[in-house]
Amino acid sequence: MEELKIRVGTKEDVPAMMKLVMELAEYEKGADQVTNTVEKMTEDGFGENPIFGSFVAEMDGKLVGISIYYFRYSTWKGRRLYLEDIVVTSELRGKGIGKGLFEQTVAKAKETGCTGMMWQVLDWNESAIEFYRQYGTRFDDDWVNCKLDF
Amino acid sequence: MEELKIRVGTKEDVPAMMKLVMELAEYEKGADQVTNTVEKMTEDGFGENPIFGSFVAEMDGKLVGISIYYFRYSTWKGRRLYLEDIVVTSELRGKGIGKGLFEQTVAKAKETGCTGMMWQVLDWNESAIEFYRQYGTRFDDDWVNCKLDF
Repeated sequence: MEELKIRVGTKEDVPAMMKLVMELAEYEKGADQVTNTVEKMTEDGFGENPIFGSFVAEMDGKLVGISIYYFRYSTWKGRRLYLEDIVVTSELRGKGIGKGLFEQTVAKAKETGCTGMMWQVLDWNESAIEFYRQYGTRFDDDWVNCKLDF
Repeated sequence: MEELKIRVGTKEDVPAMMKLVMELAEYEKGADQVTNTVEKMTEDGFGENPIFGSFVAEMDGKLVGISIYYFRYSTWKGRRLYLEDIVVTSELRGKGIGKGLFEQTVAKAKETGCTGMMWQVLDWNESAIEFYRQYGTRFDDDWVNCKLDF
């Protein structure tokens, strides 16, 4: 039986992390929008002023999932954890890897004194919405995302 | 004629910032959800590890508007500025104060090497959507906000 291990991500994991990011981007037909690189991600996550944190899921020594988060600030609620992305390699979905990564990230938010955590889900992704509902998640679809690219 | 000045927020501005946050929360009927305080906001924004940055708008020596931002991380695009809130005191709306705060925040995102910036707008807020459209903003309403409060 394969053994699942969830641990904090390291600099050495970045090439495999980036591969998972690209796998998801291709699935979502957004690969051409990805301008991030292994070099930039290494600097941004493991340089002098890291701007994100991560957990990785390992199975038989292979990196099969990642959770990427950072801290955000709410004028109403103060410090919150923002879960940017959970990615699990497509051939291993439905085995509890995403659940392990999600729960580890929730634990991190609690440990670091956050008043809560936030993330976004695509409105058609019913299985993800059902999964999150079990944790008592509140959903709010009144907002529109706005983006400016430089 | 009153003179408008946009500058970086300081520790001394926090009580007036918090007042604007509360003014907006009352308008949005969410005042009971605000658990943030002047003490916490001072620590979070001006302590050893600031987790947000700010600009303030001053008119005749009075603080009449704020912009609160922090840096976020996109696995696709790297470092981005997230505009958490622009608040302008209700009696002075429509005088270009929000525009001044918004443009200063865009400039900050560019200066700090961000690949872009992001924010959210309520889907019924047509005047804000029209305002943002002028800057070439891309809108995306396929996402649902998810929250867990601890």
